[in-house]
Amino acid sequence: MKNYITHDEWCIVENGFHPEFNEITESLMSLGNGRMGGRGNFEEKFSGKTLQGNYVAGVWFPDKTRVGWWKNGYPNYFAKVINACNWTGIDIEIDGEVVDLNTSKVLDFTRTLNMKTGVLERICTIELTGGKTLKIHSQRFLSLVDDESGVIKYSITPVNFYATAKITISLDGDVSNKDSNHGEKFWNEIAKETAHGEAFLTLETKKSAWDTVPTFQVCTGMTFEVFKGLEKVDFATFPIKSEKYVANEFKINLEENQTYTIVKYAVNLSSENHTIEDLTEDTKSYIAKISQKGFEQMLAEQTAAWAKKWEGNDIQIEGDVAAQQAIRFNIFHLQQTYTGEDARLNIGPKGFTGEKYGGVTYWDTEAYCLPFYLSTSEQKVARNLLVYRHNHLQKAIENAEKLGFSDGAALYPMVTMNGEECHNEWEITFEEIHRNGAIAYAIYDYIRYTGDSKYLEEYGLEVLTGISRFWAQRVNWSSDKNKYVMLGVTGPNEYENNVNNNWYTNYLAVWCLKYTLEGFKTLKNQNLEKFNEIIEKTKLNFDTEASKWQHIIDNMYFPYDENRQVFLQQDGFLDKELLTVEAITKHRPINQKWSWDRILRSCFIKQADVLQGMFFFEEDFSIDDLRRNFDFYEPMTVHESSLSPCVHVILAAKLGRKDKAYEMYVRTARLDIDDYNNDTEDGLHITSMAGTWMSVVKGFGGLRVKNDKLSFEPFLPEQWEGFSFRVGFRGNALNIVIKGNNIKIENITGDKIKVLIYGKEIEVGSKSSASVEY
Amino acid sequence: MKNYITHDEWCIVENGFHPEFNEITESLMSLGNGRMGGRGNFEEKFSGKTLQGNYVAGVWFPDKTRVGWWKNGYPNYFAKVINACNWTGIDIEIDGEVVDLNTSKVLDFTRTLNMKTGVLERICTIELTGGKTLKIHSQRFLSLVDDESGVIKYSITPVNFYATAKITISLDGDVSNKDSNHGEKFWNEIAKETAHGEAFLTLETKKSAWDTVPTFQVCTGMTFEVFKGLEKVDFATFPIKSEKYVANEFKINLEENQTYTIVKYAVNLSSENHTIEDLTEDTKSYIAKISQKGFEQMLAEQTAAWAKKWEGNDIQIEGDVAAQQAIRFNIFHLQQTYTGEDARLNIGPKGFTGEKYGGVTYWDTEAYCLPFYLSTSEQKVARNLLVYRHNHLQKAIENAEKLGFSDGAALYPMVTMNGEECHNEWEITFEEIHRNGAIAYAIYDYIRYTGDSKYLEEYGLEVLTGISRFWAQRVNWSSDKNKYVMLGVTGPNEYENNVNNNWYTNYLAVWCLKYTLEGFKTLKNQNLEKFNEIIEKTKLNFDTEASKWQHIIDNMYFPYDENRQVFLQQDGFLDKELLTVEAITKHRPINQKWSWDRILRSCFIKQADVLQGMFFFEEDFSIDDLRRNFDFYEPMTVHESSLSPCVHVILAAKLGRKDKAYEMYVRTARLDIDDYNNDTEDGLHITSMAGTWMSVVKGFGGLRVKNDKLSFEPFLPEQWEGFSFRVGFRGNALNIVIKGNNIKIENITGDKIKVLIYGKEIEVGSKSSASVEY
Repeated sequence: MKNYITHDEWCIVENGFHPEFNEITESLMSLGNGRMGGRGNFEEKFSGKTLQGNYVAGVWFPDKTRVGWWKNGYPNYFAKVINACNWTGIDIEIDGEVVDLNTSKVLDFTRTLNMKTGVLERICTIELTGGKTLKIHSQRFLSLVDDESGVIKYSITPVNFYATAKITISLDGDVSNKDSNHGEKFWNEIAKETAHGEAFLTLETKKSAWDTVPTFQVCTGMTFEVFKGLEKVDFATFPIKSEKYVANEFKINLEENQTYTIVKYAVNLSSENHTIEDLTEDTKSYIAKISQKGFEQMLAEQTAAWAKKWEGNDIQIEGDVAAQQAIRFNIFHLQQTYTGEDARLNIGPKGFTGEKYGGVTYWDTEAYCLPFYLSTSEQKVARNLLVYRHNHLQKAIENAEKLGFSDGAALYPMVTMNGEECHNEWEITFEEIHRNGAIAYAIYDYIRYTGDSKYLEEYGLEVLTGISRFWAQRVNWSSDKNKYVMLGVTGPNEYENNVNNNWYTNYLAVWCLKYTLEGFKTLKNQNLEKFNEIIEKTKLNFDTEASKWQHIIDNMYFPYDENRQVFLQQDGFLDKELLTVEAITKHRPINQKWSWDRILRSCFIKQADVLQGMFFFEEDFSIDDLRRNFDFYEPMTVHESSLSPCVHVILAAKLGRKDKAYEMYVRTARLDIDDYNNDTEDGLHITSMAGTWMSVVKGFGGLRVKNDKLSFEPFLPEQWEGFSFRVGFRGNALNIVIKGNNIKIENITGDKIKVLIYGKEIEVGSKSSASVEY
Repeated sequence: MKNYITHDEWCIVENGFHPEFNEITESLMSLGNGRMGGRGNFEEKFSGKTLQGNYVAGVWFPDKTRVGWWKNGYPNYFAKVINACNWTGIDIEIDGEVVDLNTSKVLDFTRTLNMKTGVLERICTIELTGGKTLKIHSQRFLSLVDDESGVIKYSITPVNFYATAKITISLDGDVSNKDSNHGEKFWNEIAKETAHGEAFLTLETKKSAWDTVPTFQVCTGMTFEVFKGLEKVDFATFPIKSEKYVANEFKINLEENQTYTIVKYAVNLSSENHTIEDLTEDTKSYIAKISQKGFEQMLAEQTAAWAKKWEGNDIQIEGDVAAQQAIRFNIFHLQQTYTGEDARLNIGPKGFTGEKYGGVTYWDTEAYCLPFYLSTSEQKVARNLLVYRHNHLQKAIENAEKLGFSDGAALYPMVTMNGEECHNEWEITFEEIHRNGAIAYAIYDYIRYTGDSKYLEEYGLEVLTGISRFWAQRVNWSSDKNKYVMLGVTGPNEYENNVNNNWYTNYLAVWCLKYTLEGFKTLKNQNLEKFNEIIEKTKLNFDTEASKWQHIIDNMYFPYDENRQVFLQQDGFLDKELLTVEAITKHRPINQKWSWDRILRSCFIKQADVLQGMFFFEEDFSIDDLRRNFDFYEPMTVHESSLSPCVHVILAAKLGRKDKAYEMYVRTARLDIDDYNNDTEDGLHITSMAGTWMSVVKGFGGLRVKNDKLSFEPFLPEQWEGFSFRVGFRGNALNIVIKGNNIKIENITGDKIKVLIYGKEIEVGSKSSASVEY
């Protein structure tokens, strides 16, 4: 755990340079706008610890699967998020000396990510040889408005000297991934040009061995202006070209105590959004457009755009700056990563903050991220996340076929870019099949929240049919148990592999069969034509398949401990030595300190598994059920998945366990800022950030949807004076303020609305508010 | 399955050239002498399908572990058997045309491996351009007597032309492994020299990242003579040198119908057996020694040495040439691979016949190979195999420590070269721990056979202590079952992974604890001083540890089906859909046709698991026990491990299932010759060859050791007229002849001996024989 980031309500501040933590800071201060993003690297050369990273949404490379021992069914490739052209470079030499914060003496330094505006700012003073003092001030942002562009305002001030500065403004596409084999580079150069004050570079991803994966082209362009003080100055540039690199170099005679500013405008256009033929021309027009706008106007638009986002989704916490900073940090990065504009995109586990994991879509999207977007964005954003999976249905069917399933059974990939599986651990790829259930659950969750029940007939039932068929083929009849069983599964708790009858997966499967059947039955009554259309499209033999599904629903086996009256995570769980995490304090984190088999044999749980199921289907269980299971499993849980604490916040809150809920909240909210898991340098845990949001809204706010109404059962942590959050719900925008024992519902936009507070219905008029003591 | 090898009692014959199967033939015709070996490649250039392979025993390279997802505890490297200098090259050009069987027209062709003498011979006639007919006759062997050398006699006869031949006699060290990354080469050149008619090349394996692995140097040397007819001729040579390559080139004016012969002598000396300083000089003296001996004398010695080997271990089968050929093929390759001279060496799964798998030591050695060497070689050979593991005890303790075990617990590696683990699948590396039991069992098996009970105090008890400590830490108490359980295990049936309470492993563990305790108790009574010495050396707290061991022995859980009265392969086995292999004929082999998870969920068994245990500990079970378990498990067994059929031959024979026993015998014996598993091209299944030997001797011969006596319960397959085999036993050499219902015991050397025939004791006088009807 680290503690060098200054606590501040709106900003992530590094006060004083911490080069040893630079890669962590770069992760924390990453910028994105949904279309492109990158880490908080310095603009000028830096020879110290750094992970240079710029990324373009939807652009990736299929890297050949590497395993020691091939298992049948493994995918051919692993989809890599690839490092793209570094458009941020502004290199400075003063009288031949390279400005580099690793070699110069840093006199003062502040790096700030302003989350209110999405601007990364750095103010520092360094000492060059001979006592030359240079001040650097840089501001950088990726425009939310012109979302294929970024802009930098970079100033230097020679405090106490005159000198000649050589300045190189570059686009550098000669980059490689940190995790690539033998430093392999994934880009080929297609074209480049450079003229006075501008440069363009078109790269294409290397052709891979797999036909299903296209190559991508990205054209990066830039132009820049130079100012002496506030006055724009002319300069003579030298164009520089080398492999996958274009730059403009120029010299300035620096005068003492005079500020020189470079404003660099850059764009990244990808063949995903532009025809290849027009890529360069489009880039040129785009560059022209934003440079005409100018930095100040772009900044004003950026500030306004972020203000609008915050208006819809800010959470305010009173009396706890660390908690306030943390929740905004989580919301900020979620919003940067996925804007929901494009149904082809999804939420990568590291977003635009690092290379690790690859792929962009995990079950995290459905289980953790969807609720955030449901409450804080337009309905279409969440809907796009669902449609994304519908678009991949055929691939999911093919994926299941590769594993021996048939007749339209669909298994969605564990990790994917384009619908094809790209993960290669058998115990995960083939066995962590509960992801299929989360995709079904998301449909239910979306309709429950939005009331958009049409979604089911439009897209949902097709997906549910594929998934239900998978479950029906995946279970088998145990003559020994006289029940259906599900063998060879890995649950959400990945510290168990290849187990039989994982309670969560079995429960999810049965729920999914039920939900699908209900969906079909309702549709049959309401719209026979549409029903027949789906039957036709899915080639569903409704009588046979539905009765098989019903038989499974009626006869599924669920492991249960009669003694403790708890659901058993899987068969044989009670054979383990049942310890609590207190017994292994010195051994944590076990994923770093124990061998894999030791982890597997132990009772210790990586993330909520039975409890994840009880969270999803809470109406099915009494509070006593929940308490018994929570008390059994939580003490064995090491929360070594970033997705774990949030579920525990929500359940602990429900059980009135204030301390546990707060403890878990801090863990999830400041996971990256304080580097709890010692891995923030690889990038941020983007998807679990949505879990943090859920912790506050569903945990402390107690938000649920019950019978088409929003329901709140709030709970104020003792460490807080109060908190408030925004939610959108079916045309209403509400601000919820919790203070002491009071909850205030402000109905900001929309008609009057009925909400439940601890089960009691109250009505809040349009543009009005209501307070309730609880 | 292929069927192109001519059936012959002593030879493997390829009649007519089968270039499409050339890699298979190269595997089948591999040569070895325990110190070096190689595949049956042609001497001259061949541009068709070929896997060039030459290997030096004990020389290997640690290749970096490659996995998609790292698991804690994985070894750093995978030990690769590396392709070494090709010393066989004799390239021929006739009037500028390269002699290459892939481009020339092959008029007639025979390639023969004579297993009686260990000589590979090829006689062929080819047509070059312009109708030039050339006859080639080559003979090659690796000397058993001078076991760091090989020799080639290579003749060409221009049948119908005069021409100039350019002949290049080479040593080519510029080789790479087929499975290396990006064609990486593992050798560096150290020195080379070439003079008239001779050449020397010293290579060193690349330095690796791991200190525990030394580099190896190998000096390869050669000299040659040229004959016109029988007359030695002089010739002018041109030395050729390039990277890792040395050769001599010379030209001869060929006369029609005249035979020209090259005799090439080569040696491979490795730094494992020679000091690096003397490597070149030793090579030169060695070359001088063998070339002075000459080809004919070397051949005579070779023939005599092989005759001696066959005298001790031949198996004769009457009335079934295919079976006869097959059993000799198995015995021949086993003898070539491991001679037992060197306790540092072991039996690689592919021997000197291919690169696949890497490592040299698997549990195959103890479970399958040891009985062969016990019966057919001097006692020291089997003893050396045991001492090999004793030498690695400290490494096995360190290996266990890496996985979290302590206090002297030892886990022998799954795959190793030097005692360090080098396998990297968690479900195997960390979980297939029954290997530890096989190592303990081998000690028992060795002592039972040889009567060398001193071995226990000299080496055995130390190893058994380490292994017993491992079991005692590996089990845990299940309060649910009120028994000890063993969780997270992979049994011999690798088509199940990470199961709980694998019956075989549990049984083996308990047996091992018992055997260790008995060993200590006996020693304490017989030799207190030695007892104390071992206690001291192993730091054994005898009272505490022994009573823990006893508690486990008394309270171990064994899964059992009361209904069927069979032992259950593991917990939950009965939840599977129980089918027989008939149900999946179209799906076999499942390891090529099914995804890994489907294999795991199915009931199908790769190789004997419960039955392996019943084979090891047959005295513990009644024939009815065996029948029930055999009838339950065998029908589910797909035998996709080469180690499976032999155990089933032996058990089927015991149960009087003649057809099943014969069916399984053919499968194990002709596995490689007929390429049952479609993988002979990668190399031969060396270790399972010992299982084939067991099939005959323990299966059809019914050989056992009972109370220090050899016991036979023979059984003649209907397809055979009779069979005989040799066994050595405690100073006696016996020839056992089974014909009809008669068994004849010929006591060839040694004193009179008492043997049991179907439980009845008979005495056979020295150099005498006895016949019994059964």
